[in-house]
Amino acid sequence: MRIVVDAMGGDNAPQSNVDGALIAAREWSDTEIILVGDEARIGALLKDKPSNLKVVHASEVIEAEDEPVKAVRRKKDASMVVAGRMIREGEADAMISAGNTGALMTTGLLVVGRMKGIERPALAPMIPTLDGKGMLALDLGANMDSKPEHLQQYALMGSLYREKVHGIAKPRVGLLNVGTEPGKGNELTKHAYPLLEELPIHFVGNVESRDVMNGVCDVLVCDGFSGNILLKSIEGTAGALFSLLKEQFGKSLKTKMAAALMMPELRSLKSTLDYKEHGGAPLLGLGGLVVKSHGSSDANAIKNGVRQARTALQNRLVESISNEISGK
Amino acid sequence: MRIVVDAMGGDNAPQSNVDGALIAAREWSDTEIILVGDEARIGALLKDKPSNLKVVHASEVIEAEDEPVKAVRRKKDASMVVAGRMIREGEADAMISAGNTGALMTTGLLVVGRMKGIERPALAPMIPTLDGKGMLALDLGANMDSKPEHLQQYALMGSLYREKVHGIAKPRVGLLNVGTEPGKGNELTKHAYPLLEELPIHFVGNVESRDVMNGVCDVLVCDGFSGNILLKSIEGTAGALFSLLKEQFGKSLKTKMAAALMMPELRSLKSTLDYKEHGGAPLLGLGGLVVKSHGSSDANAIKNGVRQARTALQNRLVESISNEISGK
Repeated sequence: MRIVVDAMGGDNAPQSNVDGALIAAREWSDTEIILVGDEARIGALLKDKPSNLKVVHASEVIEAEDEPVKAVRRKKDASMVVAGRMIREGEADAMISAGNTGALMTTGLLVVGRMKGIERPALAPMIPTLDGKGMLALDLGANMDSKPEHLQQYALMGSLYREKVHGIAKPRVGLLNVGTEPGKGNELTKHAYPLLEELPIHFVGNVESRDVMNGVCDVLVCDGFSGNILLKSIEGTAGALFSLLKEQFGKSLKTKMAAALMMPELRSLKSTLDYKEHGGAPLLGLGGLVVKSHGSSDANAIKNGVRQARTALQNRLVESISNEISGK
Repeated sequence: MRIVVDAMGGDNAPQSNVDGALIAAREWSDTEIILVGDEARIGALLKDKPSNLKVVHASEVIEAEDEPVKAVRRKKDASMVVAGRMIREGEADAMISAGNTGALMTTGLLVVGRMKGIERPALAPMIPTLDGKGMLALDLGANMDSKPEHLQQYALMGSLYREKVHGIAKPRVGLLNVGTEPGKGNELTKHAYPLLEELPIHFVGNVESRDVMNGVCDVLVCDGFSGNILLKSIEGTAGALFSLLKEQFGKSLKTKMAAALMMPELRSLKSTLDYKEHGGAPLLGLGGLVVKSHGSSDANAIKNGVRQARTALQNRLVESISNEISGK
């Protein structure tokens, strides 16, 4: 297995990316880790290089504020683009990047390329749930306008991902909707519902956004627009509540004492809700495996991205999706 | 002013509805309150009837579990339908119901009737915000599929409502979207954006769902599907967080002490986030004023619904919307 790590993407690059790649290379000697980026800068951070760690030079970097499509088209020697090209040309099996999300989706589409039979690849991050297990949601922002057939493919890909990478035997797949009854929804979800019923998956029907945090399914199918509204409103509400709590706790000596007593519990609560804890988000439906790590990834998050990619490769995720899509 | 109260709709009907109507009639002697419903049951609850309180008999009731369109078509003598007919026929100026939301929207559309020039009436409840002021969001569930022109009308109606009923001089109107930049979104929001710019309102641009609770605007424009996802995910996340907190608080003697110290602050926190505190949701774009009170309304909530309707009538809300829509 050859896994490429974009050394230059993310808030803590290249330091965390190099550190994470090093830890991964040491932990999994059967895996070749390829760091792509500025050779000189990477070299300066690599003191003791294990034999299964390689560096490939790339002279450019796609920045967080770059316009995705333009950046991918113009910066042909950007670390992210070079990594994508290695996947397409069979020089590597998977790639991980903590860089610009839009640019990574563009790299997936234009450089790595779509899987045959897939119209729209999907970004599939984990949404936090109360039980700490999380829910894989797709699409979360790769495509703003979806057709019922796209949602059908998302359902299939998401189910296979949960099975192959997370080891869930019969993942429960739900459709994000405004009510639980089958006839509910807008034109998109009304037409997608019967298409999801046709699939060889464990479709549990419509799921309302208020039930998401209770972990009522393992895979949540949605269009990119609604998915974005859902994810950011969970994030915003949790953030707002924590800041309200903080304010309330600071109000008096009594509440300050209560806050001190509660601090460890509140920290654990906050981490349950932190979607960064759930590892990277796969881009599903491409010709190869691409994992988006959070922009603020530390070395451990990068290493977890490698672990995710390894599991997916070991369980032949991309081949399984391709077989299902082509009806083999 | 003649305001009809549906005596039979809601979890606490007819008791709370009759009590609320009584309090309102006593408080506002210039307003005629008309209770519509089962005369015998209402009469039993009315001991001391003020002269500005009237009862109109209706023999049927639309239940919470009734299918909306069927119920409105078949139960022609349901309290909700009779109230709607009184608005249409000019026998009353506004109506308040805590009954079946779908049936009330259907009553609005089929019995009260749309305002000339309005394609789709919108349901506009308040979303809780951290500052306690709330945000009027529309549409929240009356229409699942919207066109850009519908969003434009929502923006205009929402802005007028905040100005006329809540006394906000230049309400900030935002468009629910996946990013704050003007070019962001799906086909719907991309096309709606320039239409909102054309309006004589204070349009503040795109608003992300993560910023809603921070009260970044006074009116949030969205299609019914995304709006439902947003509202229910705020509700679900807040509910989940409170149950997590409760669980953490119960863990040990230490955390139980902290909980006891914090209880008044937590209660106030919870009520800040309770959208029921914000009164009823108007159905905008109809030929008359219809206010949906929460299903669990108590007497005070019903009375607040009457207050809302009074303010809207005093400030000629429906006429203002009609004038703007017809370009007068």
